[in-house]
Amino acid sequence: MAVGKSVFPEMPAIGGVRLGTAMAGIKKPDRRDLVVIEIPEGAAVAATFTRNAFCAAPVQVARDHLQQSAPRYLLINTGNANAGTGARGRQDAESCCASLADLAGVDAAQILPFSTGVIGEPLPVPRIVGGMSAAMESLDEAGWALAAEGIMTTDTRIKGASAQVELSGGTVTINGISKGSGMIQPNMATMLGFVACDATVEASKLQQWLRESVQVSFNSITVDSDTSTNDACTLIATGRGAPVESADDERRFREALTAVLTELAQAIIRDGEGATKFVTLDVEQAASVDEARAVAFTVAHSPLVKTALYACDANWGRILAAVGRAPVEGLDVERIVIDLGGERLVEHGGRADSYTEEIGSRVMAQEEIPIRIRLGRGTASATVWTSDLSHDYVSINADYRS
Amino acid sequence: MAVGKSVFPEMPAIGGVRLGTAMAGIKKPDRRDLVVIEIPEGAAVAATFTRNAFCAAPVQVARDHLQQSAPRYLLINTGNANAGTGARGRQDAESCCASLADLAGVDAAQILPFSTGVIGEPLPVPRIVGGMSAAMESLDEAGWALAAEGIMTTDTRIKGASAQVELSGGTVTINGISKGSGMIQPNMATMLGFVACDATVEASKLQQWLRESVQVSFNSITVDSDTSTNDACTLIATGRGAPVESADDERRFREALTAVLTELAQAIIRDGEGATKFVTLDVEQAASVDEARAVAFTVAHSPLVKTALYACDANWGRILAAVGRAPVEGLDVERIVIDLGGERLVEHGGRADSYTEEIGSRVMAQEEIPIRIRLGRGTASATVWTSDLSHDYVSINADYRS
Repeated sequence: MAVGKSVFPEMPAIGGVRLGTAMAGIKKPDRRDLVVIEIPEGAAVAATFTRNAFCAAPVQVARDHLQQSAPRYLLINTGNANAGTGARGRQDAESCCASLADLAGVDAAQILPFSTGVIGEPLPVPRIVGGMSAAMESLDEAGWALAAEGIMTTDTRIKGASAQVELSGGTVTINGISKGSGMIQPNMATMLGFVACDATVEASKLQQWLRESVQVSFNSITVDSDTSTNDACTLIATGRGAPVESADDERRFREALTAVLTELAQAIIRDGEGATKFVTLDVEQAASVDEARAVAFTVAHSPLVKTALYACDANWGRILAAVGRAPVEGLDVERIVIDLGGERLVEHGGRADSYTEEIGSRVMAQEEIPIRIRLGRGTASATVWTSDLSHDYVSINADYRS
Repeated sequence: MAVGKSVFPEMPAIGGVRLGTAMAGIKKPDRRDLVVIEIPEGAAVAATFTRNAFCAAPVQVARDHLQQSAPRYLLINTGNANAGTGARGRQDAESCCASLADLAGVDAAQILPFSTGVIGEPLPVPRIVGGMSAAMESLDEAGWALAAEGIMTTDTRIKGASAQVELSGGTVTINGISKGSGMIQPNMATMLGFVACDATVEASKLQQWLRESVQVSFNSITVDSDTSTNDACTLIATGRGAPVESADDERRFREALTAVLTELAQAIIRDGEGATKFVTLDVEQAASVDEARAVAFTVAHSPLVKTALYACDANWGRILAAVGRAPVEGLDVERIVIDLGGERLVEHGGRADSYTEEIGSRVMAQEEIPIRIRLGRGTASATVWTSDLSHDYVSINADYRS
């Protein structure tokens, strides 16, 4: 199941960024499960990683490598997360990097590894190494869609977004792909997003802009509240295209970057495990952004709200109860206003007079459902996207390892 | 579905505490849905209520009445929560209290109202008032089991616990009943617990002891993280029996009280919506009790852990990932040890060498599953009880209003 149409956009080439894939038989045969992304020399690379304390071995190694060298290759496998694998997991990740470095003629520290799949199994290093030559041979600037396929796990669709933005020095292209469907409440990044552009930006700025864009895109989605051990988002700026110079350039570039990341993040929710609904939670008039996010995530994680959404049941009492239990001190229910699909649902501590079951049923029948919550406490706001809780979510996750 | 056997204990009479029920047709006909509990004059009464900001009208009224007068009657209805009903809801609750006060010849402020059921519908006051005479006529010191039936909603079993404890001045009896199955993460109380004893205790002490016992019983369970708008736990001490005098008396009495509340709380988990597993999460070696509780609740709320429990799948990577994302700064995964059913599962950041899939499968096949997590940070600990996430949970909550 998934919500809305699956559309993979045209991806204009970004000079020097080549993507190759292979079927390495990591978990299942005849499945594209290994991806290599080549980064041209001189590019700036920024990345954000999961804050899960049990972060995976490849996350630890990628973080180290990023501090040591300018990355030239990203090495991504699915079918095995190489997480919860202790010291051996780190050795395995390093060993894969060393093998690709030999093939490519670069330093091992110039490889950033990424893994996704089942937690706690040893990484099948020989299979990954065995697939590398084929992946390297298929490197292609037009390889975005195949790479998007190669990073999928329980995803049912490939996910991509692309934007072009006019800067004072010329047009800049931003391409991105992502994967993720369950174990999704990214914290500082998501379960694999890879974004590249041809802009010329210094690395420290690129890192800051990535972090801020990730906060309002990947870090504002949740399928099931489970922050993964392997989340990572990488942004490459090749430096072959226009520079981001003026304040106006910066604004345009960052808006386009945020738009691409948001589209990728939303694509993960549309393809959330078992998802039948795409829900936008806007929390406004909060005392702080943290408070707005806390309320939005409390509603987004409520199993009772999520099952009501699945049932197309406008059981607004569950939304009200979830807002009421959010970790915010001194909520005044008299000032809280909740709208469902543009219709007034709750005010003055109870159901709005104008609300009828017919209105609720009409809104809940839609695939895309906006919920707007105003707290009457201040001027801060936040938006969070989520999916519903369906029988398919339970089936997918009760069967995942078998 | 429910876990383990349903056993309703013998409930010795507690002199002066009489319970009556009626079928008032509040939501459905021919269903025991109205309960009156009579409290003898001179009793001390303590209560804890939900901290949900959208707390229900009866919670607001009961809190007010408790400050004004010594309660003589508890009036409980199921089928309608009288929550999210604004000013009218409070009037309706007051109006029910006034009617019962007339019948019983006491002040309206001596009635504490409690409601449970669907949120946001107006309370059917005439039906409740219509059922009061029958409930009053059936008042009986032996009415505990019928009262336990009268407070059920999606519960599949009646829930009761009883203990007798020897104090220096004689034997004291503690009886309690509870209800709750979904929308269960009580915060300061649970979705209706009523406990009475014949001890002689002053009200301020009774309140303090209740609060502390509730924290390690009702406030340590979760089915679905959804804190209800109507949670309440009431403790009556009739003062007709032995006094709680010495330090030793106090220790014995409080141990017995905590045991009764814990049994009632655990009964809610065993009857959690769709539950097929009863899970005990012991978190030890934490820097503080709050930290231990935060880790325990993060694991207990993880949909991926809960679906793995449902599938009898020892997918320990999900437990590790949930611990890793708990809101605790500076977790050192090298020091974390996780045991499943007494078997070592995780150490040194990964799977324990001694662990095998056979061990995991054997433990997960049980109905009762203990998970022990040691953090290596300090000496504080906490225990939380939870259930799994099954297809039946989704079915029950996707269909609840229909």
